[in-house]
Amino acid sequence: MEFRFSGTGDSAQVPCFGCDCPACNRARVFTSLTRRPCSAEVRIDGKRYLLDAGRMDLAHSCELARPAAILITHYHADHVQGLFHLRWGCGERIPVYGPKDPQGCADLYRNPGILDFQSGLKPFKPLKLDSLTVTPVPLNHSKPTLGYCLDDGGTRLAYLTDTLGLPPETERFLRSWEPDVVILDSSHPAAFTTPRNHNTITQALDIIARLNPPRAYLTHISHELDTECLVAPPLLPANVRIAQDGETLEDW
Amino acid sequence: MEFRFSGTGDSAQVPCFGCDCPACNRARVFTSLTRRPCSAEVRIDGKRYLLDAGRMDLAHSCELARPAAILITHYHADHVQGLFHLRWGCGERIPVYGPKDPQGCADLYRNPGILDFQSGLKPFKPLKLDSLTVTPVPLNHSKPTLGYCLDDGGTRLAYLTDTLGLPPETERFLRSWEPDVVILDSSHPAAFTTPRNHNTITQALDIIARLNPPRAYLTHISHELDTECLVAPPLLPANVRIAQDGETLEDW
Ligand SMILES: [Mn+2]
Ligand SMILES: [Mn+2]
Ligand SMILES: [Mn+2]
Ligand SMILES: [Mn+2]
Ligand SMILES: [Zn+2]
Ligand SMILES: [Zn+2]
Repeated sequence: MEFRFSGTGDSAQVPCFGCDCPACNRARVFTSLTRRPCSAEVRIDGKRYLLDAGRMDLAHSCELARPAAILITHYHADHVQGLFHLRWGCGERIPVYGPKDPQGCADLYRNPGILDFQSGLKPFKPLKLDSLTVTPVPLNHSKPTLGYCLDDGGTRLAYLTDTLGLPPETERFLRSWEPDVVILDSSHPAAFTTPRNHNTITQALDIIARLNPPRAYLTHISHELDTECLVAPPLLPANVRIAQDGETLEDW
Repeated sequence: MEFRFSGTGDSAQVPCFGCDCPACNRARVFTSLTRRPCSAEVRIDGKRYLLDAGRMDLAHSCELARPAAILITHYHADHVQGLFHLRWGCGERIPVYGPKDPQGCADLYRNPGILDFQSGLKPFKPLKLDSLTVTPVPLNHSKPTLGYCLDDGGTRLAYLTDTLGLPPETERFLRSWEPDVVILDSSHPAAFTTPRNHNTITQALDIIARLNPPRAYLTHISHELDTECLVAPPLLPANVRIAQDGETLEDW
């Protein structure tokens, strides 16, 4: 599979509106350092699959390459807001998979347009999308949230955001599944003292150390973490990188 | 006041995702003919006020000119979706006025960030924003919805979307208020047989004929109406124009 980070930011994005911090000011000048809402795309079997749909230009990117399906981690606005526009499009319906969440977001379920919301995925029950096997795993967040473990028969990639820590059963699954690549929520700087729904970078690195995958990426990065990294660049283990928008697995 | 249409489209926008109709194809080539979500901005007293917040690049435009306040017509996604990003910004809180609607949209009320949601406006009770007087008027829509009658002491402008027809008390108010400019929902083509929440162009022209203002604009235009106008350009009365994105009152 080809995997690309289409967004690596938190709900505020980088630059954050009206913010004068070093990371936000840098991203205004070097637009390659902007961080759009956390999301990714996978290309396999000649098809394009989306992980989350929070980018505001989602409909435009889908005109360039119509997705075969969309996998939603959870129904917070920063992960689904692009669907508000996309849904009113034309053509074949687009299947949307996600956790069982009776509420969803705003009126998406009631007015789905061309989106074909599937019934909620069962944790640990694999979904086959042609040659891609997707195993949903529960995460710790303020709304029902799933991580996705993707296996194309060659590479095993675990996409794990938004989460604070990992539920024990998810960590157990990952230890036996042995991912080649782990992509993990690392929203807050180490100095952040009250994490509730997202990892600090310290917590993310602890989890990665326990799972010990060949490669790991940090994502869902806040402007506060970007600033901390600018002021005092963290010493990352050799198997860990902070993801950037547009990056692919080949860029490692 | 300076008034500018920042968006003149319906929730699908023009081009509509995946659509191959003449209007959508034209807008892909001539980007000046795109229609973003229906919205406008008013500049007066050196300040910028927004009417609705459905543009996906709202936070970016607000970095260029921070709004003094935002007036929301109603809490459908195509009128508020830009707030999902903007709210997580920095700096002084931005007052947001709108109809009394206990639900709002998704978690905007619960997680307002820098947005300062004011209690619901009372129909026909004027709100003073420095030298601008704003009178909210009820509209006919599927969610509590207000039109806004703006008076800067020189020009009287009635901004009336989303609506199907006008409630009798609103039409009565407008007749006695005598607007110089009426801006009205005209979503559907004349051939559209089952309007429920928005006017057809025929219904919009009927309302304008009854109010008979010096100038009127049609807005909240669908790609279907744009296509109808391409195929068979309608004969509009001399006081009526179809609004375009970016247009100002001076462009008449
Ligand atoms: Mn998030
Ligand atoms: Mn979240
Ligand atoms: Mn609308
Ligand atoms: Mn509406
Ligand atoms: Zn910042
Ligand atoms: Zn079209």
